Amino acid sequence: MFMLLLSLWPARSRMKEGLMFDGLCAFPLTPIVDDRIDLKAVALLVSRAAGAGVNSLGMLGSTGNYAYLSRDERRAVLEAAVDAAEGVPVIAGVGAVRTRDVLAHVEDAQATGASALLLAPVSYQRLTEAEVFSLYQDVTAASSVPIVVCDNPRTTGFTFSDELYARLADIPAIASIKIPPPRPGQASARLRELRALLPERTSVGISGDWAAAESLLAGCAVWYSVIAGVLPGTAKVIADHALAGRGDLAWEASTNLRPVWSLFRRYGSLRVTAAIAEHLGLLSSPSLPLPLHGLDSEGRLKVADAIRRCGLEA
Amino acid sequence: MFMLLLSLWPARSRMKEGLMFDGLCAFPLTPIVDDRIDLKAVALLVSRAAGAGVNSLGMLGSTGNYAYLSRDERRAVLEAAVDAAEGVPVIAGVGAVRTRDVLAHVEDAQATGASALLLAPVSYQRLTEAEVFSLYQDVTAASSVPIVVCDNPRTTGFTFSDELYARLADIPAIASIKIPPPRPGQASARLRELRALLPERTSVGISGDWAAAESLLAGCAVWYSVIAGVLPGTAKVIADHALAGRGDLAWEASTNLRPVWSLFRRYGSLRVTAAIAEHLGLLSSPSLPLPLHGLDSEGRLKVADAIRRCGLEA
Repeated sequence: MFMLLLSLWPARSRMKEGLMFDGLCAFPLTPIVDDRIDLKAVALLVSRAAGAGVNSLGMLGSTGNYAYLSRDERRAVLEAAVDAAEGVPVIAGVGAVRTRDVLAHVEDAQATGASALLLAPVSYQRLTEAEVFSLYQDVTAASSVPIVVCDNPRTTGFTFSDELYARLADIPAIASIKIPPPRPGQASARLRELRALLPERTSVGISGDWAAAESLLAGCAVWYSVIAGVLPGTAKVIADHALAGRGDLAWEASTNLRPVWSLFRRYGSLRVTAAIAEHLGLLSSPSLPLPLHGLDSEGRLKVADAIRRCGLEA
Repeated sequence: MFMLLLSLWPARSRMKEGLMFDGLCAFPLTPIVDDRIDLKAVALLVSRAAGAGVNSLGMLGSTGNYAYLSRDERRAVLEAAVDAAEGVPVIAGVGAVRTRDVLAHVEDAQATGASALLLAPVSYQRLTEAEVFSLYQDVTAASSVPIVVCDNPRTTGFTFSDELYARLADIPAIASIKIPPPRPGQASARLRELRALLPERTSVGISGDWAAAESLLAGCAVWYSVIAGVLPGTAKVIADHALAGRGDLAWEASTNLRPVWSLFRRYGSLRVTAAIAEHLGLLSSPSLPLPLHGLDSEGRLKVADAIRRCGLEA
C-alpha cells in the first residue's frame, strides 16, 4: 500500500525534496526582545542565509524557539521568513505537546507557503513508540508537503529506535530524518546502518554542528545547521567541501571552529549562537525568551574570544 | 531581607498554608473527550475527593494534563474545580515553558479563587539553576498566594539540587516542596537531610504514591497523591494511618495496593489512573489528550485484574 501511495505522491514534491533535503539547511534564531518577536531581525537572518546560498531554511526549529511561541507568533515568523527567503524553500517546525496544536501549526505552515514541515515528538509525559508513530501518521494525513522527522532526545525526552525510523520512512510523505550526532569516528558506521535500513529516497540529515563535516563525508545528505543561521557563509564552506568529498578541506574548515563547538557542548548551541549573533550586532541583547537567560558574563567573554580566534568578526 | 518579607506575609496565608500543605492533596485527572475537556467529569472527580475529606485539591498537575491545555481550558478547569470543591482549598498548577505564559496562568488562577499555586520548571531547552531560581522569583513577585515547588525530573527534565531547594525555601511565598519518591527504605534519611536544610515553615510533600506511606511515616507533611484523584477514600486511609503514626496499618493499606503501584511504575501513573477511572465508569474512554494513548488492551486487562485483587470495585 505504501508503494501505491508513493507512486501517487506528486512529482513536484519529489523534485522539491531533492532540492530541500540535500546540502545546507540553516536554522535561524527567533529573537525575542521585551517578550516580543523581533520580526525585522528574523527577516535579516533569513535573507543573510538565503544570500549565502543555503539550500533551505529551517524556521521554528529548536534554534527558532518554536516551543516558546504562541500560534500567532509562529505564523508571523513563517510569514516573515517566506517573504525574506527569496525563493529558498522554508521548512517549518510544527512540533507541540498536543496533537491538536501540531495540526493547527501544520495548517498555518502550509497557508504561509512553507515547502516542508519539521516535526519533533515534543513531550511532557514520556511518549511510547506507538504514540509517536500515530502522531506522524496523523500529521502526514493532514498535510500535503514533505516532512522531516526531527530526533532530538535532549529537548523532546524521546529516543527513536532504528526500527521506528524504518517504519516512519515507509510513510511516503516522510522525506528526511534529522539524526543526533554520532560519536566522533562513528559516523561512517552509523550511516551504513541507517542506509541499510531506510529507503533510498529518505534523506538522512545531521544535527550537532561539530559532527557535520564527518557526517556529510560519511554520506549524510544534508546538514541541519544551527551555526548556519548566524554564520551561513562559514557553514557553507564546510558543507561544500564535505559534499564534494574534499575531506581535508572540510575537516580543516570545521576544525577552525573548534572553539565554537566546544562552547556549544558546554552551554548548548542555542545560548551560544544567540550570544554570537548579539556580539556580531545582528540582534539586540538579550534575545532569548524568559525563563531562558543568555550566557552570563563569563560565557560571553568566552564567546567573544572564540569569535576572535576563529576569525569570525564581521 | 527575607525575614522582613516573611514577617509581612499575611497571617491569613500562613493559616491557610497550615491547612493546605498537610495531610492529603488529591490530584484529579482532566479528562479529554473528543479533544475537549469533560468539565462535568472534572466536577465529579473534585466533589468525590472533597467529599472523602482530602485536605486540598491539586488541579492542573501532571495528572491534570495541564501541559496539554490552552489558557482558556486551564481557566475553565479551575473554575469548575473551585465551584465543586465545597471550600476545600484548590492548588493550581501554573507551569509552562515560557515565563510570560506562567504569569498569565498565575493571574487566571488567582482570579478563579485558587488558594495556592503549584509550579514545576517545565522546560524545552534544559534550564540552569539560575534560570529556575529567577522563574520562581518572578512568579512569587507576581502572586499573592503561597506556592508549591514541584520537583518532577521525569516530566520537566530539570533536577533540583538541595542547595536550590534551600534558596527557594528562603522566599517567603514558597510554602511547600513536592519531592520525588526516595528509594525504598531511604525516606527517613532523606527527610532528615531536608529538614536540616529547610526552614520549619516549609512543608515537604511526597509524590510517587507507592512511597507515600513510608515518607509520611518518616516526616513528610503532605502526600501529593495521584491515586487520591480517583480513589480518595482509599488514599485517605493510608494518609490518616501514616500521619497518626500507625505504621503497621499504614503499611498494610499501602501494601494492599501493590498491584496498582507496580502498574504505575511500568506504565506511568497518568495512564494507569486514567484506565482505573475509565474502568470504574467515572470517565468516558479514551480520556487522555492525543498524542497520548490510553493503555493498550493488555494494560487494561492488568488494570482490571489489579482493581479486582485490591478490592477497589466501586
